Amino acid sequence: MLELIERIRRDGKNLGNGILKVDGFINHQVDPILMDACGRELAKRFANIGATKVLTAEISGIAPALTTAYHLGLPVVYARKSKPVTMPDEVFLTMAPSHTKGRMVDLIVSPEYLAGGEKILIIDDFLASGATIWGLVRLAQAAGATIVGIGTLIEKVFEGGREKLKPLGVPVEALAIIRSMDEDHIIFEDE
Amino acid sequence: MLELIERIRRDGKNLGNGILKVDGFINHQVDPILMDACGRELAKRFANIGATKVLTAEISGIAPALTTAYHLGLPVVYARKSKPVTMPDEVFLTMAPSHTKGRMVDLIVSPEYLAGGEKILIIDDFLASGATIWGLVRLAQAAGATIVGIGTLIEKVFEGGREKLKPLGVPVEALAIIRSMDEDHIIFEDE
Repeated sequence: MLELIERIRRDGKNLGNGILKVDGFINHQVDPILMDACGRELAKRFANIGATKVLTAEISGIAPALTTAYHLGLPVVYARKSKPVTMPDEVFLTMAPSHTKGRMVDLIVSPEYLAGGEKILIIDDFLASGATIWGLVRLAQAAGATIVGIGTLIEKVFEGGREKLKPLGVPVEALAIIRSMDEDHIIFEDE
Repeated sequence: MLELIERIRRDGKNLGNGILKVDGFINHQVDPILMDACGRELAKRFANIGATKVLTAEISGIAPALTTAYHLGLPVVYARKSKPVTMPDEVFLTMAPSHTKGRMVDLIVSPEYLAGGEKILIIDDFLASGATIWGLVRLAQAAGATIVGIGTLIEKVFEGGREKLKPLGVPVEALAIIRSMDEDHIIFEDE
C-alpha cells in the first residue's frame, strides 16, 4: 500500500537491530486518517473470508484493528496484557515475547468475547517473528474458534514470521513489506 | 448521547463499588460503529476550540480518542504506561492511580510528540475521579502545551472528577452521564 510505504520512508526510522521506529504515526502518535485508509485496505483484502470477529493485542494493534473492523462491520476484541477487575476469574491466557519490551507478556481474553465457532481475523501493527500473532492464534484455538486470516500494517520479512504462520493455511496480508533493514536503510519488497 | 446510553442500559453491568462493566463494547471487545459515532459526536462538541492534537492514555482511551481525532482531522497521542525501546531516554512522565488495576501506573509521553504551544483536547473512556485525566493535564503542562477541552464517553458524577477539573476553565463533555450506581441500578442524569 503505497500511502503507508511512503509514510514509512518519510517518517520511519531504522534504529538498528531490526527495530523500526514508527511512533510518529502508528504506535504512540497515531495518524487517524492514515489508520483509516489502512483499515479500509485490509478490510478490502479480507472482504471474502467470512470473518465474524477481529482479534488483536493491546496496545499498538488496537488502532489498525479498530479501523479494519469498522470497515468490515465486525466487533473487535483486544487481548489484554493484565486482567482488569471487570474480567471474570476464568480467562483464556497465553504468553508471548514482547519485541519492544524485551520480556514475556500475558495475552488475556475473556471467554465472554471469544467463543467456539467464531471465525477470527487477526490484525496487528507488525508481523515480525510472528510470536505475538501465534499467541493470538493459541487464544482463539483454546476458545474453539477458527483463524481465517491474518493482516498487519508492516511485515519484516527477515524475521521469518510468515513462514511460521504457513501451517495455518490462511491468507496473510501486510500493507508494507520490508525485506531488509541493513545499516540506515529500509528496503521494501519489490525494490 | 442516546445511542451510547441505550447501549450501556442494554449491555453495561453494575459490578458494585462504582465499577461499571462495559467491556463488551468499549474496553475489551469494542463496537467500532458505536465508537465511530461517539468520536463523531465528541468532534462536533469540540469543533470550535482550536485543538491541534488529541491526547489520551492507553489502553481504553485509544478507541474513542482515535475516532474523535479522525473526525477532527487531528493527530492523536496516547500516553504509554511503559517506555518502549523506540522512545528517547528523556520523556515526560507522571503517575496516576488506575481504577481497574488498583495501583499506580506511569503515564509517559515522548517530547517528540508533545510540544510547547500545542492546544490539547484530552479524550478518555471514563471521567470518574479525574485522576487519569489530571495525569494527562500534568504531562501536557510539563510540555508547555495548553489544555483546551476534555471529553469522555462516560462520566460517573458521583466520583467528583468534573469538580476537580473546574479550575482548568475548559469545556468538559461526556456522552453518557451517570448520576448514581446504587445496588443493581445505573441511573443516568435527567432520569
